[in-house]
Amino acid sequence: MQKVFVMSHPVAFDPSTLKYNEAGLIPAIAQDEVSGEVLMMAWMNAQAIEKTLETGRVTYWSRSRQSFWIKGETSGHVQELVDFRIDCDRDCLLVLVRQTGAACHTNRRTCFYTAVRDGAETELMAPMA
Amino acid sequence: MQKVFVMSHPVAFDPSTLKYNEAGLIPAIAQDEVSGEVLMMAWMNAQAIEKTLETGRVTYWSRSRQSFWIKGETSGHVQELVDFRIDCDRDCLLVLVRQTGAACHTNRRTCFYTAVRDGAETELMAPMA
Repeated sequence: MQKVFVMSHPVAFDPSTLKYNEAGLIPAIAQDEVSGEVLMMAWMNAQAIEKTLETGRVTYWSRSRQSFWIKGETSGHVQELVDFRIDCDRDCLLVLVRQTGAACHTNRRTCFYTAVRDGAETELMAPMA
Repeated sequence: MQKVFVMSHPVAFDPSTLKYNEAGLIPAIAQDEVSGEVLMMAWMNAQAIEKTLETGRVTYWSRSRQSFWIKGETSGHVQELVDFRIDCDRDCLLVLVRQTGAACHTNRRTCFYTAVRDGAETELMAPMA
C-alpha cells in the first residue's frame, strides 16, 4: 500500500534491542494492509515478536491472561503478517496484516469504531453479520 | 477515507471515562487521513485529550519533558485533527490527522520507516528534503 525504497544496508534484527516498558512489553499497532484501516493495538514481549516473525501469525502477549495470544486461535480471525515495522524510538511496532474477519472481540472489523464528534461519542459501525 | 454509518444515539464524551496507565497516560496513534499511513504513536493524558478536541491541534503529553507537546509547535509540522476515535477497551486512541510535513523527528513522513524482512532491519524511506 506504500511505495518502498530501500535506503540502507540491512542489519540483523534482534528483538532485545527494542525498548520495552517495565512489564517487558511494547505496543503493537495492527493495520490492514489492503484497506489501510487501523484494526487494533495490543502488546508484545520479545518472545511474541519472535513467534510472530517465525510463524507469520501475529502473536501478542495477553496482559489479562498473562499468556501468548495467537490472534484468531480460538475465533478464527487470524492476522497473517505481511510486514513488520519498528518506529524511530524503537518503542512501538506496526504490523501490516491480512485480517480474516473481525479484528475486534465485539465482532467489528476494527476496535476503533467509536468517534468523538461535537463532544459526543458516536458508533461508526455495527458488528459483522 | 472510510464509509461511516452512525449506529447509535450519541452520548457525551468524558475523557475521565477512558482507561489510563499508572502514569495517567493513554496511547494515541496518529494516522494520515488522506494516505491512511500510520504516522506515529505518542501518549496523551486527560488534559491533552481536552486540548486536542478544543483546539483541533493534536496535543500529546511528552514523557521525556513532562509537559504538553503541541505537535509541530516548534517544527511547524502540525497535526490538524480530522477525527478522534476510541477503541473498544477505551485504552487506546486513534487520531486521524492532516499532517504538515514530516511526522517523525528524523524528518521522515512516518516514524515507522524501518521494516524487518528476512531477519534484517531495512530502512524504507529517506528524510524529507
